[in-house]
Amino acid sequence: MKTFNDLAELPTDEISALLELATRLDKYPEPLALQGKVLSLLFLSPSLRTLASFQAAMTRLGGGSFVISPDMSIHGIETRPGIVMDGAAAEHINEAVPVIASYGDAIGIRAFAERKDLEHDMSESEFGALTDLIDTPWINMESAMNHPCQNLADWKTMDDLAIPANGGKFVLSWAYHPKALPLAVPSSTLYTAARRGMEVTVLRPEGFELPKPVMQKARAAAESSGGSVRETDDRADAMQGAHVIYAKSWSSTRHYGDRLGDQKLREEHIDWCVDEPWFDNARDDCRFMHCLPVRRGVVVSEPVLDGPRSVVIHEARNRMLAQMAVLHQMLGAGQ
Amino acid sequence: MKTFNDLAELPTDEISALLELATRLDKYPEPLALQGKVLSLLFLSPSLRTLASFQAAMTRLGGGSFVISPDMSIHGIETRPGIVMDGAAAEHINEAVPVIASYGDAIGIRAFAERKDLEHDMSESEFGALTDLIDTPWINMESAMNHPCQNLADWKTMDDLAIPANGGKFVLSWAYHPKALPLAVPSSTLYTAARRGMEVTVLRPEGFELPKPVMQKARAAAESSGGSVRETDDRADAMQGAHVIYAKSWSSTRHYGDRLGDQKLREEHIDWCVDEPWFDNARDDCRFMHCLPVRRGVVVSEPVLDGPRSVVIHEARNRMLAQMAVLHQMLGAGQ
Amino acid sequence: MKTFNDLAELPTDEISALLELATRLDKYPEPLALQGKVLSLLFLSPSLRTLASFQAAMTRLGGGSFVISPDMSIHGIETRPGIVMDGAAAEHINEAVPVIASYGDAIGIRAFAERKDLEHDMSESEFGALTDLIDTPWINMESAMNHPCQNLADWKTMDDLAIPANGGKFVLSWAYHPKALPLAVPSSTLYTAARRGMEVTVLRPEGFELPKPVMQKARAAAESSGGSVRETDDRADAMQGAHVIYAKSWSSTRHYGDRLGDQKLREEHIDWCVDEPWFDNARDDCRFMHCLPVRRGVVVSEPVLDGPRSVVIHEARNRMLAQMAVLHQMLGAGQ
Repeated sequence: MKTFNDLAELPTDEISALLELATRLDKYPEPLALQGKVLSLLFLSPSLRTLASFQAAMTRLGGGSFVISPDMSIHGIETRPGIVMDGAAAEHINEAVPVIASYGDAIGIRAFAERKDLEHDMSESEFGALTDLIDTPWINMESAMNHPCQNLADWKTMDDLAIPANGGKFVLSWAYHPKALPLAVPSSTLYTAARRGMEVTVLRPEGFELPKPVMQKARAAAESSGGSVRETDDRADAMQGAHVIYAKSWSSTRHYGDRLGDQKLREEHIDWCVDEPWFDNARDDCRFMHCLPVRRGVVVSEPVLDGPRSVVIHEARNRMLAQMAVLHQMLGAGQ
Repeated sequence: MKTFNDLAELPTDEISALLELATRLDKYPEPLALQGKVLSLLFLSPSLRTLASFQAAMTRLGGGSFVISPDMSIHGIETRPGIVMDGAAAEHINEAVPVIASYGDAIGIRAFAERKDLEHDMSESEFGALTDLIDTPWINMESAMNHPCQNLADWKTMDDLAIPANGGKFVLSWAYHPKALPLAVPSSTLYTAARRGMEVTVLRPEGFELPKPVMQKARAAAESSGGSVRETDDRADAMQGAHVIYAKSWSSTRHYGDRLGDQKLREEHIDWCVDEPWFDNARDDCRFMHCLPVRRGVVVSEPVLDGPRSVVIHEARNRMLAQMAVLHQMLGAGQ
Repeated sequence: MKTFNDLAELPTDEISALLELATRLDKYPEPLALQGKVLSLLFLSPSLRTLASFQAAMTRLGGGSFVISPDMSIHGIETRPGIVMDGAAAEHINEAVPVIASYGDAIGIRAFAERKDLEHDMSESEFGALTDLIDTPWINMESAMNHPCQNLADWKTMDDLAIPANGGKFVLSWAYHPKALPLAVPSSTLYTAARRGMEVTVLRPEGFELPKPVMQKARAAAESSGGSVRETDDRADAMQGAHVIYAKSWSSTRHYGDRLGDQKLREEHIDWCVDEPWFDNARDDCRFMHCLPVRRGVVVSEPVLDGPRSVVIHEARNRMLAQMAVLHQMLGAGQ
């Protein structure tokens, strides 16, 4: 495996192999597997789980990592192409990325969407410009539209909990949040649940529809896997018989890049905070999933988050295991 | 060993075993002992020695670590319970702590006292709220009232220097400092010297008495160990025949949480800077100890700090060795 | 090897051995060489390549490292000698450096020049004050006048590219930059090219002459190695038949420490941006070298930096390999 960017780029047997390997590495540690191997970690956007879990993953496999982020004392990093650098930034990403990559056997990169223009963000042109600079294997640690490490961890979490693939009912629900957040997690989570063969419902208010290409990609995956994809703003309908509700806030696609328009629309939906009554017609054992960080009392009520439905810590721990599997496939002895 | 929180929680033979192990690991390195093991390090308060020495300790034992601190680019972390998170903080400590812990085989946590209310700080309720969130073994890297890594390092330092346990005279002296500092080091150091069986004198101005429960805990330890504990504001009396002066500034307990009252009282004692004349009636080889960081010319004079009495660098290096012993006991093959 | 400070302190066979070892470690990894060994990294000045490449180097050799820099949450660090520390800084470098050093088997230190007084900076008295505090082996990660890791990496780069030692024409050229930068790289690069036996030309405008002792040191090296050193402000003359142009901006030595005088003089030379026409009478395969970070469109044009002449990424990767060789010699089994 040379890149880990989007589950859509992997055949099903490779996904299965990663999931099995993640489980095996949890039971049977391999502290010599990546001896002397280095993972470069470049964070152009903030992180806690990804930062911690990748470092832990490399250590558990016997290798190591280093972190570079712009909040370190490294002068500013310029990202605009073709610019005369007579301002504050002392280094251009065109040198920084290949240099950082050259110190590792693989590199992980995180760079969130600009969130000015939806077409632009969906094109992944900025993330592509970064990865075009790299010769080594690379891992997408969250770009404008993808978060494959989260997706693989979530898939494993549902397997761990014996939530059915075909026949499993998965609700991806928008939730209120004071800020306009990126589309990477909802888009790639939708794809993942559909790819897993689940009956997926996107529950969101009007104006927060996921982009058409995102829905189409998920529908195509569902067709192959025996799943289905639909969308609604009717909560009771969506939650009917649900195995899982996966909550996440995201930007209004109707007002994408228009901060005030987004703000106005989202404040009409401040009641979209996942709470126990949401589960009235779900399965009794319906689970609550979230990628974290999550705002208590805003995205989800405390009783749900702290209660038995919540599997958010399980998901977060699976980040490490999923990434260990990816790193093992990418850098291990068989490669 | 599942937790390392307070030397008072350990039987004497366990303390002895840790001290012996620390010495052994210095002489006979074990670079394979913790292969593939991960220590999570969570700093909710600033650090230099602890930050560096724990990372070094894990590397020397063949494992690794990662650091999370709020000065990193990780959004704010909310610590208040039961809050609606519609402000700046994007993550609550209730998720952050178990997630970070889940990536490690053990976790170290540092969180200083609030220093508003003495009862509250002495209850360690905030640190307890954090460690209640954790399933893995954990290490106290300094809480409101404890600093067991420093205590174990200091005990080893006195052993290294052949300072007598029973019969050794230990002066814990308050010193001037422009800020009101926590009680963790003086309280746990007092306990440690008493537990070691020494004749301990707390030397402090009126208004800076250590809290009664702290004195009682030390007196109880002294009774079992054959030591003694007393307090005075008479410098010449305290230093008579002393083997060690351990300097440390701390908050006024009379004005705890009252910044201006504390400030006014401490400024009357700006002359409490440990200087060569303090040693007039001490033993010729009386040592100067301090946990660092120390303010030169304020807490201690340069001649004393840079002179042969000072063992502060020895103490600081012993931090690493003491922690290696703790980690070895907690995570090594026999556990 | 106890210190790595200045190539001038190493006999030629040691430099050769380091260069061979760097190449060997690239081809034949030694992930067990420094098992359990710790490198302390102290950055008193900002860094990206050095920060990343030293961490990667230690991991590749089976050891580890930790980083301390003042941008971390560690209270301020006081550097002035003999001061009464009643201000913001809570720790003095006199404790911080030996403590940090005591956790490692070796320590790397970076501390740039003050750039107030040229004599003072050339004396390296501040860096010397730091290294005087250390008992362990240490590595200069850039001081006022030295950058030996960069020098060794650049030497290896020229070897890799078969740029002749004796007979090779090396142009060290000043370039425009909006800020007054240190002399460490140009001074030590000049020495390195001369020591390698090359025909070295320093190309710079009037007022930017390198200091006389720097020129003399390089000339003495050239005499022993069969090389030569000259200086000029005539670009066409300098570039005649050149194998390499090594661009770097530096402070005006005529206005050293005088920010406004420097600024005024350098702005007369805003056209000193290395561009394709500079190479008109150079060798066709003349290379462009730079230590990075480099300002695009200011120090060098985009077509040169992104074109086939540029070997800046190769140089940067060689930082890691050169440092692996140094660490292996310093801390490996034979030591």
